[in-house]
Amino acid sequence: MTLLIVLPGREEEADRLAADLRAVDGGIEVRVWPDVGDPEHVEMVVASRHPRGILGLFPNLRLVASFGAGVEHLVGDPDLSEGVAVVRTVDPALANGMAEYVVTAVANWRRGTKVYSHDQDLGRWRPQIYGLSATVVVLGMGRMGSAVARALGAVGHQVIGWTMTGRLVEGVECIAGRSALNGVLPVADVLVCLLPLTPDTEDILDRELFSSMKKGSLVINVGRGAHLVEDDLIEALAIGRPGHAVLDVFREEALPTDHLFWTHPAITITPHVAALTDPRGASERIAENWRRLHAGEALLDRVDRGRGY
Amino acid sequence: MTLLIVLPGREEEADRLAADLRAVDGGIEVRVWPDVGDPEHVEMVVASRHPRGILGLFPNLRLVASFGAGVEHLVGDPDLSEGVAVVRTVDPALANGMAEYVVTAVANWRRGTKVYSHDQDLGRWRPQIYGLSATVVVLGMGRMGSAVARALGAVGHQVIGWTMTGRLVEGVECIAGRSALNGVLPVADVLVCLLPLTPDTEDILDRELFSSMKKGSLVINVGRGAHLVEDDLIEALAIGRPGHAVLDVFREEALPTDHLFWTHPAITITPHVAALTDPRGASERIAENWRRLHAGEALLDRVDRGRGY
Repeated sequence: MTLLIVLPGREEEADRLAADLRAVDGGIEVRVWPDVGDPEHVEMVVASRHPRGILGLFPNLRLVASFGAGVEHLVGDPDLSEGVAVVRTVDPALANGMAEYVVTAVANWRRGTKVYSHDQDLGRWRPQIYGLSATVVVLGMGRMGSAVARALGAVGHQVIGWTMTGRLVEGVECIAGRSALNGVLPVADVLVCLLPLTPDTEDILDRELFSSMKKGSLVINVGRGAHLVEDDLIEALAIGRPGHAVLDVFREEALPTDHLFWTHPAITITPHVAALTDPRGASERIAENWRRLHAGEALLDRVDRGRGY
Repeated sequence: MTLLIVLPGREEEADRLAADLRAVDGGIEVRVWPDVGDPEHVEMVVASRHPRGILGLFPNLRLVASFGAGVEHLVGDPDLSEGVAVVRTVDPALANGMAEYVVTAVANWRRGTKVYSHDQDLGRWRPQIYGLSATVVVLGMGRMGSAVARALGAVGHQVIGWTMTGRLVEGVECIAGRSALNGVLPVADVLVCLLPLTPDTEDILDRELFSSMKKGSLVINVGRGAHLVEDDLIEALAIGRPGHAVLDVFREEALPTDHLFWTHPAITITPHVAALTDPRGASERIAENWRRLHAGEALLDRVDRGRGY
């Protein structure tokens, strides 16, 4: 049986992943789309932004692994039969990279790193006072959110984790539900979005939520572009709630050249680089799920298709 | 008996510290230099960059606390009688701030934050690959160094802690001695200096040490300006070992306007702001040492005056 890798437009990465998978488990027959072989042999697919329609081509498909943390492109695919299991692939490097990105975004904002860079250009020695620590609300306490919470804690910030389900994470103050969120937003210096994208979380960063935020605070979107209502952010920044936005994900990527965000003085843009998947670490988790599939064991990072994450 | 605060040129901070100390322990008679009162009553001094000569004025002085982590200005003071104890004041905020600064300096360097900022000015979407994690050597594994090591670990970096004494820190790979250091430098992506300043560590960041560093690596000096041989750094950057320097401390502060460092393309300057002391947190540790002094208990963060830290 075959494990098929589907990473359209990322051929080099796909080939590296295939090689890593073969190195981890020589018994897996690995193929890279579009070299499918016999469609009836495809038992597992590893996909990111797969072409619509292809998941219906494999009658014996049993498992689809997202190459990365997001699965909205998989659970929303009408071609995926009900019996097929879906897993995410969150290798340790992905969670670490996200933690580093968020800690750094908070620090650059609150310390004024860009101001120091400008001061250096002018040869100006001008130390600035900054708050001793920040209160950070993290939306989403999955593998990525809890890694971010731990790293923020390791540099002294107060972290409040918000979940849809009331899930608890060890060592992190957790809250659930919209009214609890509205209760903490007015005292939070930073809001970080790390939610999965589902019909419930789409557009969650909207006018209403922003209106509860503290004056001059920071919002960081490292979830998905569709979590953010773009026009609402522009309006909210105009009145300073929040005072700044750091965005790594967008509804359309690459962000169109004529998009308002590029030139907005209160928006910092990075081109979807907050966290990178390590092909080696990912291949180990994918091979382990291949093994578990055949041993009939519980899969790693399995997605509840009904819930959407 | 009196506790005297000596923070010349930082009157506002001194007054806030005095108020915090009185709030923590109403029984301490706190005075702020130059309002000494009766010199015979001065039993403890809290000092940063104190005027030379003044420590000899108090015949009943028993304890001097540095306001901050550095004590080279105290242990090197010929006016300090042998019997006077010296302590450092490392409040949790100071260690947290240092951890945040170093994590952020590493991330901004390896991810190219400044490049993305420039790309945003040009409306250019240009994701860059970066290494999944870095190997970081931290010189000095005291309170600050171990906080930095833990925070770097929390975002996935490999940390090697180097000490003068062979001290071990839980959860951190530690090495000691010059030859062990020379052994790891060629594979380290980042070198961080967080040593105390002593005759043994002065000028440690010199030509010889730089010559062992990896091509294109990063050096971060957050110890003291006198750890670095400035001319040697300029020479070393010219041949790319290290490839970049992030400097927060300097031999002369404010860094003189005409200093070469300001305009060097491979040097990032911040004006001694890596970590700030929290007067509230510091006052608790200072009051605790006042209590211990009178109870005859072991002092917190006591310095070995012979060793110099």
